[in-house]
Amino acid sequence: MSDKRPLVGIIMGSQSDWATMRHSKETLDKLMITNETLVVSAHRTPSRLTKYATGAKKNGLKVIIAGAGMAAALPGATAAITPIPVLGVPMEGKVMGGLDSILSMVQMPAGIPVGTLAVGRSGAINAAIMAASILALSDPTISRNLEKFRANQTASVIETPQN
Amino acid sequence: MSDKRPLVGIIMGSQSDWATMRHSKETLDKLMITNETLVVSAHRTPSRLTKYATGAKKNGLKVIIAGAGMAAALPGATAAITPIPVLGVPMEGKVMGGLDSILSMVQMPAGIPVGTLAVGRSGAINAAIMAASILALSDPTISRNLEKFRANQTASVIETPQN
Amino acid sequence: MSDKRPLVGIIMGSQSDWATMRHSKETLDKLMITNETLVVSAHRTPSRLTKYATGAKKNGLKVIIAGAGMAAALPGATAAITPIPVLGVPMEGKVMGGLDSILSMVQMPAGIPVGTLAVGRSGAINAAIMAASILALSDPTISRNLEKFRANQTASVIETPQN
Amino acid sequence: MSDKRPLVGIIMGSQSDWATMRHSKETLDKLMITNETLVVSAHRTPSRLTKYATGAKKNGLKVIIAGAGMAAALPGATAAITPIPVLGVPMEGKVMGGLDSILSMVQMPAGIPVGTLAVGRSGAINAAIMAASILALSDPTISRNLEKFRANQTASVIETPQN
Amino acid sequence: MSDKRPLVGIIMGSQSDWATMRHSKETLDKLMITNETLVVSAHRTPSRLTKYATGAKKNGLKVIIAGAGMAAALPGATAAITPIPVLGVPMEGKVMGGLDSILSMVQMPAGIPVGTLAVGRSGAINAAIMAASILALSDPTISRNLEKFRANQTASVIETPQN
Amino acid sequence: MSDKRPLVGIIMGSQSDWATMRHSKETLDKLMITNETLVVSAHRTPSRLTKYATGAKKNGLKVIIAGAGMAAALPGATAAITPIPVLGVPMEGKVMGGLDSILSMVQMPAGIPVGTLAVGRSGAINAAIMAASILALSDPTISRNLEKFRANQTASVIETPQN
Amino acid sequence: MSDKRPLVGIIMGSQSDWATMRHSKETLDKLMITNETLVVSAHRTPSRLTKYATGAKKNGLKVIIAGAGMAAALPGATAAITPIPVLGVPMEGKVMGGLDSILSMVQMPAGIPVGTLAVGRSGAINAAIMAASILALSDPTISRNLEKFRANQTASVIETPQN
Amino acid sequence: MSDKRPLVGIIMGSQSDWATMRHSKETLDKLMITNETLVVSAHRTPSRLTKYATGAKKNGLKVIIAGAGMAAALPGATAAITPIPVLGVPMEGKVMGGLDSILSMVQMPAGIPVGTLAVGRSGAINAAIMAASILALSDPTISRNLEKFRANQTASVIETPQN
Repeated sequence: MSDKRPLVGIIMGSQSDWATMRHSKETLDKLMITNETLVVSAHRTPSRLTKYATGAKKNGLKVIIAGAGMAAALPGATAAITPIPVLGVPMEGKVMGGLDSILSMVQMPAGIPVGTLAVGRSGAINAAIMAASILALSDPTISRNLEKFRANQTASVIETPQN
Repeated sequence: MSDKRPLVGIIMGSQSDWATMRHSKETLDKLMITNETLVVSAHRTPSRLTKYATGAKKNGLKVIIAGAGMAAALPGATAAITPIPVLGVPMEGKVMGGLDSILSMVQMPAGIPVGTLAVGRSGAINAAIMAASILALSDPTISRNLEKFRANQTASVIETPQN
Repeated sequence: MSDKRPLVGIIMGSQSDWATMRHSKETLDKLMITNETLVVSAHRTPSRLTKYATGAKKNGLKVIIAGAGMAAALPGATAAITPIPVLGVPMEGKVMGGLDSILSMVQMPAGIPVGTLAVGRSGAINAAIMAASILALSDPTISRNLEKFRANQTASVIETPQN
Repeated sequence: MSDKRPLVGIIMGSQSDWATMRHSKETLDKLMITNETLVVSAHRTPSRLTKYATGAKKNGLKVIIAGAGMAAALPGATAAITPIPVLGVPMEGKVMGGLDSILSMVQMPAGIPVGTLAVGRSGAINAAIMAASILALSDPTISRNLEKFRANQTASVIETPQN
Repeated sequence: MSDKRPLVGIIMGSQSDWATMRHSKETLDKLMITNETLVVSAHRTPSRLTKYATGAKKNGLKVIIAGAGMAAALPGATAAITPIPVLGVPMEGKVMGGLDSILSMVQMPAGIPVGTLAVGRSGAINAAIMAASILALSDPTISRNLEKFRANQTASVIETPQN
Repeated sequence: MSDKRPLVGIIMGSQSDWATMRHSKETLDKLMITNETLVVSAHRTPSRLTKYATGAKKNGLKVIIAGAGMAAALPGATAAITPIPVLGVPMEGKVMGGLDSILSMVQMPAGIPVGTLAVGRSGAINAAIMAASILALSDPTISRNLEKFRANQTASVIETPQN
Repeated sequence: MSDKRPLVGIIMGSQSDWATMRHSKETLDKLMITNETLVVSAHRTPSRLTKYATGAKKNGLKVIIAGAGMAAALPGATAAITPIPVLGVPMEGKVMGGLDSILSMVQMPAGIPVGTLAVGRSGAINAAIMAASILALSDPTISRNLEKFRANQTASVIETPQN
Repeated sequence: MSDKRPLVGIIMGSQSDWATMRHSKETLDKLMITNETLVVSAHRTPSRLTKYATGAKKNGLKVIIAGAGMAAALPGATAAITPIPVLGVPMEGKVMGGLDSILSMVQMPAGIPVGTLAVGRSGAINAAIMAASILALSDPTISRNLEKFRANQTASVIETPQN
């Protein structure tokens, strides 16, 4: 790991979101970016969220990845408190396959942004890559790791479809 | 008014929501239910919201009506703090006519409910009527006012469509 | 139970809705709120509905929770007759995951409100909690039960996601 | 007119629907089919609706056209009471252009059908034509009028688009 | 059966629709209404459709029920040719659970109506009941059968939900 | 023009579609591709459509562009008859901004394809360009015209946004 | 095969799209149209795409069929480079059953068209048939094959639905 | 300005997007963050995009904000080439109010992330604020400016709604 203290906080509204959000952790681990994970609900544990978001910057976090489903208020509630970048990962769901959580994240009113990624596993992976791209701006090691990750990814797309 | 202290708090995420939310106030006034209004944003003024919601019950509020648009987190964030009933009014909007705010309110995860009304003016009126129906359970004056309101409403539907 | 007579009526449009609506009953039972259950269809048994809704208030009911799917007319048809608060629970479904029943409930025209909760199990649980928050306004026992329920709920959110 | 008593009842949930529903009346008038109009709301005037629908068949009505918006319960509530065919006309609206009223009509559960037409003016015209096609099955005059109406309609489509 | 010649034609765009459309046939059989079934595609067998629709009236058909999925043109293409009433049954599907076929049926432009029922099995049953309600206008036997069918249906809704 | 006989037929379901579909004609004219225009409705003038589509190939048409709104059956009904390529242009509309016509065109079942372009003016322009790309495969003049058109288009995108 | 060099390129954004896109290949093979297949991602292998699309025309390709899911940029990115016709096949997906990929393809802005087919297997088959209809304009053998294919298809629709 | 060279590139697919995207520029200017603007279309000027994205990092850009409408490929195509963070701003549009551009941006497949903001003006403002939050991680001046901006924003929310 390029640093001992976590640089990225991965938070999620419910234990059930972990099956998706572990892809954020696994991708950060591959990119050798220190991270921590926490279940914290904007609705069921608002004090825990306030405490976490208030301390995020002084605890050394640079980016928060927040996964949530349904009326997915977690990333917005986090971004309302901390000035560090917040990335949102909508969960798949029953109503239009997760459109409820997409819109609850992406449609943040002017003033408090959430950078929203795709629904589910793709979004969880991409949130980690985007966190890396943000950290890479001021960390040459992460920058090199990210470039390698992207090059490997390009190289791994086999040209001929396999039956 | 049946009481001097406000029984219903009408809150909204932005000054621009007032054009819709004044219908909640006007309907409560017709029903002679004391109320107060406040602009408070879940995202831009989270501390103001925490303070308001934390004090709501001990300040004598019985119901909170919360109007918000887009990623409409206000009613859910309020209901996360106060145990009194919270009613949500989604604002009309550009994305599918307000479906973003409908889903951001109605799709609250298990544990913290928001009773969601229709988009826009209809919802603002209905939130007030629903607040009245809640207060009427233990207030005979409001109960009589509500019954009269409903009877007048029924009587006012003219049978023959007018050109 | 804090009272022998049912305070909350749980009605549903079809036997098939029971798998969802039993979560309303189980949650009310946990909160020690007396309740009764009934299958009654706005479309297939309109007389049964008229009779039930007409008698609801004088039979001592304080809140009605109505679950229905597709063109989910049940909560609106109930609220058209009784002045007590009606909460709606949309069923999951095939067309956009239940958006048909969400919109059939939430989009009530001005005059007759339905407080709409989330689709499916989450909504069924939340309807019960919302009924509790309404009853708690004038019943200190229910108020204490609800505060305990919410505190337990907050405490039960484990911080570390479990594999 | 082929008969003095109204054969078709045109009902609508609100005075504001008349701007759309008058197209049903105008089309029936062109087809020389007797009709009557009534504002009756499933939610605000449920007794008026019960009375109207209960008496529809014995009053000689053969078809009911019901226009309504938002959570458009009117045609379904009518079809729940009367065995004569009920046609539904969804109103244009803010949420996805009237998708709320389309789904509230078309998604009737098994047992009580509503034949749903298009949103707005097109649907209002088509409800009248469909009523004519139903009446034409046992009324040769209406059958001839309908055939002429369709032939004129075909002839009136000019081949060359006009600037 | 009340008549030897088929009164209702049940057509469908593909063999795969039969699993749904057999519910139309079974319901018509219960109501003792003669019927016939045919696979005919607006897109793959347009001549077969033209021939069937052109002959429908003189062959004694009174109503056509048309089931189709995706860009569900079958009922509209039928109604373009025959003046007898056409009822449409959208098939469940992948895109938003069949919203593509709902909209392809219900949104018929002014001039050629299709009375559209719900998606899938509910719609197939309801199309048969609606056909019965149309035929009942001039056939006392069908009228009695339909009244009995509706009464049985009402009686069969058991009041207490069963675990 | 590279040929005297029309190579492309631009058809539309209604005179009201011309405001959009004239963009197809204007774009074909710029590309110097001969074309003809016709109002023909799949629903109101099915015989005219059958005649036009049946004769299309032997009359020298190479591509048909079909614009239609709502339950937009025109391109599919055309493609059901003629083996030449059919391109569909959905009209803007009230229900979700034209999603009804998009889905009625794009969701053609296997066997009869319609190449669907964007809603409204963009789609009308693009249908003409796509027709050009098809004709260019065997017509060097059209190929040169298309290459020039694309080059001009690229060159016309000014780098600095203008206030 | 009517030619040794591939006339149609079937490209797809991911190996996982092959299960759908092989239906394009199988249909082209049935129509005896030479083709080639390639996995190439607009996002993960942009250089591969630029190279392929730049060389497409001079390598003798006449049509490109591009299948992609989610934010399905592949067909548009291809059409931005090559002047030959590009057909798009949206993949089924979680968000509204693939509506994300439909809209990402069909809603191409004016200037660069993509002819979009249906979601999934139906679209993959239809893209091949549409490619055949394009090639048939200048290749009598393909024209004959296509006419036979369509005739067989019509003949294979059995009239009586099979249990 | 805290730096002479542009730190943020604001790109847009069309001149018509400038009315929205100027809010990104105005917000960056308020935050005293150097920036540059460019019209570049993924579809009409792919070479310009490739050149811009390829040079972005070595030209000193830290973040790219990309606004686009309809099938909004611009941010994804940019992120496919450059490793620096890319933020997407969907344009309002006709189809479901811009849902086409939301989904075309947010639903990026795993590997190449785009942080997507809200539709239209709110999203344009938020993209600038998010860029500031990213730059603030390693630039104390921007960090102070951002904190002040957020504090002013909170202070500017007046409590009492104004008529």
